[in-house]
Amino acid sequence: MNAERKMSLNVVIIGAVALGPKTACRLKRLLPEARVALIDRDALISYGGCGIPYYISGDVSEASQLQSTSFHMVRDPHFFRQAKDVEVLARTEALSIDRQAKTVRVRALDTGEERDLPYDKLVLATGSRANRLPVPGADQARVFTVSNLEEAIRIKELIAGGQVERPVVIGGGAIGLEMVEALSDLWGLETTLVEVQDQLLPGIVGPNMARMVKEHLHEHDVADVFLSERVERIEGQGAELRLVTDKRTIETDLIVMAVGVRPNIDLARAAGLEIGPTGAIAVDSRFRTSDPDILAGGDCVETMHLITGCKCYFPSGSLANRQGRIIGTNLAGAVEEFDGVVGSFILKIFDLNAASAGLCLSRARAEGFDAFSAFVVQGDRAHFYPGMDLMYLELVVERPTGRVLGIQGLSGQGDALAARIDAVAVLLKHAPTVRDVSNLELAYAPPFSAAMDVLNALGNTAENIMAGKNRIMDVDEFAGLFEQGPNGDFICLDVRGPANAEPFVRKHPGLWINIPQDELRDRAGEVPADKELILICNSGVRSYEAQVSLDHLGLGPSRNLQGGMAAIKKYGLKLD
Amino acid sequence: MNAERKMSLNVVIIGAVALGPKTACRLKRLLPEARVALIDRDALISYGGCGIPYYISGDVSEASQLQSTSFHMVRDPHFFRQAKDVEVLARTEALSIDRQAKTVRVRALDTGEERDLPYDKLVLATGSRANRLPVPGADQARVFTVSNLEEAIRIKELIAGGQVERPVVIGGGAIGLEMVEALSDLWGLETTLVEVQDQLLPGIVGPNMARMVKEHLHEHDVADVFLSERVERIEGQGAELRLVTDKRTIETDLIVMAVGVRPNIDLARAAGLEIGPTGAIAVDSRFRTSDPDILAGGDCVETMHLITGCKCYFPSGSLANRQGRIIGTNLAGAVEEFDGVVGSFILKIFDLNAASAGLCLSRARAEGFDAFSAFVVQGDRAHFYPGMDLMYLELVVERPTGRVLGIQGLSGQGDALAARIDAVAVLLKHAPTVRDVSNLELAYAPPFSAAMDVLNALGNTAENIMAGKNRIMDVDEFAGLFEQGPNGDFICLDVRGPANAEPFVRKHPGLWINIPQDELRDRAGEVPADKELILICNSGVRSYEAQVSLDHLGLGPSRNLQGGMAAIKKYGLKLD
Repeated sequence: MNAERKMSLNVVIIGAVALGPKTACRLKRLLPEARVALIDRDALISYGGCGIPYYISGDVSEASQLQSTSFHMVRDPHFFRQAKDVEVLARTEALSIDRQAKTVRVRALDTGEERDLPYDKLVLATGSRANRLPVPGADQARVFTVSNLEEAIRIKELIAGGQVERPVVIGGGAIGLEMVEALSDLWGLETTLVEVQDQLLPGIVGPNMARMVKEHLHEHDVADVFLSERVERIEGQGAELRLVTDKRTIETDLIVMAVGVRPNIDLARAAGLEIGPTGAIAVDSRFRTSDPDILAGGDCVETMHLITGCKCYFPSGSLANRQGRIIGTNLAGAVEEFDGVVGSFILKIFDLNAASAGLCLSRARAEGFDAFSAFVVQGDRAHFYPGMDLMYLELVVERPTGRVLGIQGLSGQGDALAARIDAVAVLLKHAPTVRDVSNLELAYAPPFSAAMDVLNALGNTAENIMAGKNRIMDVDEFAGLFEQGPNGDFICLDVRGPANAEPFVRKHPGLWINIPQDELRDRAGEVPADKELILICNSGVRSYEAQVSLDHLGLGPSRNLQGGMAAIKKYGLKLD
Repeated sequence: MNAERKMSLNVVIIGAVALGPKTACRLKRLLPEARVALIDRDALISYGGCGIPYYISGDVSEASQLQSTSFHMVRDPHFFRQAKDVEVLARTEALSIDRQAKTVRVRALDTGEERDLPYDKLVLATGSRANRLPVPGADQARVFTVSNLEEAIRIKELIAGGQVERPVVIGGGAIGLEMVEALSDLWGLETTLVEVQDQLLPGIVGPNMARMVKEHLHEHDVADVFLSERVERIEGQGAELRLVTDKRTIETDLIVMAVGVRPNIDLARAAGLEIGPTGAIAVDSRFRTSDPDILAGGDCVETMHLITGCKCYFPSGSLANRQGRIIGTNLAGAVEEFDGVVGSFILKIFDLNAASAGLCLSRARAEGFDAFSAFVVQGDRAHFYPGMDLMYLELVVERPTGRVLGIQGLSGQGDALAARIDAVAVLLKHAPTVRDVSNLELAYAPPFSAAMDVLNALGNTAENIMAGKNRIMDVDEFAGLFEQGPNGDFICLDVRGPANAEPFVRKHPGLWINIPQDELRDRAGEVPADKELILICNSGVRSYEAQVSLDHLGLGPSRNLQGGMAAIKKYGLKLD
C-alpha cells in the first residue's frame, strides 16, 4: 500500500456492538490516517451483549454499565469521535451494498434520509439475530428474545414493575439457563424451563452432567424443567398467556425464547457474497469474504472447528473481539490469520458452573469419532485445605489414538473450573493425547490444587480405561439400571467402609453388598461369581483399585462406576 | 519381561513421602504380582509436605489430616499393607547400596538391627533436605527449618503453648512467605522477614511484582521485611535469641530458616551413581540413573528445563507425584518418558496470590535471552460483573522472535490467576509466540472473563511493544526516577480526566501535567516539546492510545507507564 493510498483509506463498518468497534479502534491505532465510519441501526452501541442476563437479574443495575469502559467512560458516539477518531452513525440502517461502485446505501432511521457511503474496504459486523419459534402467538408483546439491550430494558421494566410472576423460558442452552437464573434467583419468580431436546445444554455437555445441572435447578427452586417437549403455540394475550406444548399447557405472564441465534446475513446474501455450509458468511483465514474488498467477522461468519476440521458457527462475544482485532490489523496492511476455534465455553448457573472445550461425547460420536469418556470426581485443591470443593470433569477421547477431543466440567468454584478447562482448551489445537493431560504441569500449591491435580487424575483415568485396566459404567447407565428395576443380571459391590455402605445394603437386599476394598483379597470367597459386578466407592478411585484386585484374583466380570457415590448424589439419584 | 521374571519382580523404594508411595501404588496396580517394599527413616509417611505451613497456621488443625486420603483414610503402614499390598518399613534407615549384589543395607532405628534387602529394581525417592545457614548458632533448639512433619509439630506446639511472640523467618522465597503468613496471620505474631537478595521471590517474579508482594506484607502488618541483608550469626539461647545480620540485630524467640532445599543424594553418591550439574541425581527421560536397575525421581533428581534446554532442579510435590506414576509404569515393563518442566508455580500470601511459569525477565536475561516484558493490569472478569478484581500479569518475551519465555501474575483471586498462568504454562513446551497468547481461546462468560480477556490483552500489549508502537517504562524504573528526585529530563503527562489528575498536578508542579487522551489532538500545542514524556493513565491502555496520537502528531519522545496508576498503587509508591 503506498503512502497516497494509505492517506485515503476509507473503511465503512456495518455493526457497532463488539467486532465493529474493536476493528475500528485497532485500525485507527495502526493507521491513524484511515477514515473509519461505524454504522448501526440501534441507538445503543458498543455494549457487552453477554451481560444482558446479569442486567436483567439485577447483578448489573444500570444498562449504561454494559456500555462503559472499565474506567467508567461511556462508549457512545461522542466517545468514539473524541477518543478514537471514529465516526459513528447510530440509528442508521445499511440497506444494500453496491460492490461495483463500492458504496453502501444507508438510511437515517430518524429522518428517513438515504445516501450512499463510499468505501475502500467494507467490514460486515452484522452479528446474529435471536431465533423466534415459528409457532402461533410468538409475536405476542410479552414474548421476548434475548437479542439486544433495548429488548432487555423492556423485560426488566416489566419485572421491576411487578408485572411478572410466573415466566417461562424456552430453551435449555446457555442463554436460557442464564435467563432462568436471572428470573428466579434475584427476582424470586416462579420460573419454568422448556427444552425440546432430552437434556439441558445439548451438544455442550454429556447426559450425566446435563442431568446434574437439572438437579441443581431443582435445588434452587426452579418451578419446573420440562425436557423433550415441543412448543406448539402460545395462546392468550397481554399478561394472560398459555404456552401449549405437545404434553401440557403452562399458564404464564412472560415468555423468553432462548432458542439459539442465526447469523445476520441479509446484506451479504443480497450483495451476492458466498454463504458457507453453516448458513453464515464464508470467509478465509484473513476474514475476506468472496469479495476481497469486503471483510466480515464475529457472529455473522462461520469459522473452522479445529477438532472436526469442518466449518462451524460459534457466536461469541470473546471471539468477536479477537477477530475484530485481527481484521483491524489486516485492514492496516499487515497479514494476520485466524486458525479457528475449539468452542471454549463456560456458564454460571446459580452456585454451579459448567464449562466445556472441544467436543462432548455425543457430538464426538455424531462426528464419526470412535470415542469414549473418562469421568472423575476429585477435590479441586488439596483435600486438607479449607474450602476444598469437589470438581466433576469428563474427558472425551478418541479410542484408538488416545487423542483428546474435548473436556467438560462442573464445579461450585467457577474460576477453579475455568483453570482446568482452559488448560485443555488452549492445547486442543496441538492435538494432545491423554498422556499429555496426565502430565500437564499446572501451578501447584495446596490452596489451588492437589499434588496430583484433578486434571492430571482425569488423564490418568482415561489412560487406564484405554489400557483396559479400568472398565467403566457411567452414572447415566447406572441410573437407568436402577430406574428400570433390578433385572437380576448385576450386583452392586460397595467397596467402601461398612458405615458408609450399610444403609444401601439394608435398602437393596440381594442387589447391594459390601466388601471394603482393603479386605477384598482376604474375602475373595464372598464375591458373587454369577453376576456382573458394579463396583462402587465414594469417587471411583477405590473401586478401580478393587477392579484391579478382582482381575488379579480372577473374579468378575466387573465394571467400575465412574465418579462413584459423588456422581450418584450430584445426579440426584436417590438410593438410600 | 517373561512371566517368571514378572512373578519375582522385587522392588525396593527408599523414601515414603510423595514419589515413593505413588510409585509403589502405580506399580502394584499394573503388576499386582510385584513385591514392593517402601522404606523410610521417619515414623510418619506419605504426607502432604506442602501442607506444613497450613498446619502451622492452623488452617489445617491436625497433622493427621496431611496424612489422610481425601476420604479420611490415614495413609499409614497398615493402610499400605491392606489396601495396596505394599510393605512399609518405617523408622528404617537405608545405609548403603551394594549395586553388584543388588541389595540395600538397612537399619531398624528402634532396634538397631541391620539387614540386607535384595532388589531387582531399586527406586531412590530420598527427596530433599532443608538448607540450614552455616552460621554460628544455627544449631540452637529454637532454630527450625520447614523440612518434615515432625519438626512442624514441634514448631506448632511452641506457638500454641504461647511460647513465641516475635519470630523471624529467614528467606523470602515461597516457603518463607508461606511461613510469614502462617505465623502472623492466624497467630497474630509480630513476624520479621530477612532475605539476602534485593527482592522477594527472587528468580520467580520480576522486581515490580516482588515489590508489590512486599507492599502486601506491610499492609498485613508483617513487622519488618529486610532485603539485601546477610545473616551473620545467631546469639543467645533458649527463647532469648538475637539474629545478627550485616546491618542490625533482631531480638527473637523463634527462627525459621526457609533458605531453600538441596537434593538428598548421599546414598546415590556413595553408591557411585552419576550426580548431574545441578548437584541432584542425573536420570534419563525414563528416570534411570547411571545404573539401569536403579531409578530415581522427585526432589532428589534433576530434570530438563523446557525453556532453557538445560538441566534444572525443581523440587515440587506435584512433580514428584507425576514422576512417581511414570516410574511405576516403567517398572511394570512399559516405556513412558518425561519431557521436563517449565517451573509452574503458585503461592498464596495473605489476600494476594502470586504465580509464575517459565522464566521471569531477570532470569531470562541471565540465561542469555534478548528479552523484554509486557505488563498489563486489567479486570479478571467483565468490568460490569460484581466481584471483578484487577489482575496484574507480566509476559516475558524473546525480542526478535516473539517467543514467550514466561509469565508471572498477581491477583487477589487465586483460582482466576491460576487459570491464566496455567493456560500459558501448558503451552510453553510448544514454544508459543505473543500472537498465540493474543488468540488464546479461553472459556468466556462475564462472570469469568472479559470479552477480551486480560491474558489476550497481555499478548496484544506484547505484540504492540514488539512492533514499536508501545514504547514502555515499567513502574520500577518510574519509582526510581521519582525517588531520585526530578532530574529535569522528563515530564509526566497524565492523560486521564481532570478530576483524577488534579491532585498529582497540584503536588508536582512542573513535573506532572494533564491533557486527557481524548483532547490530545485538539490541544497538541500544549504538549511540551523539550522533555521525554512519561504517559500515565489508570491502567496503561489510554496512555498507549495517547502515545499513538502523539506519534501521529509528531510529538515526543514518549514512554508509556505500563500498568499506569494501578501499578503505582500496588507498588506502594506514594505520589499524591
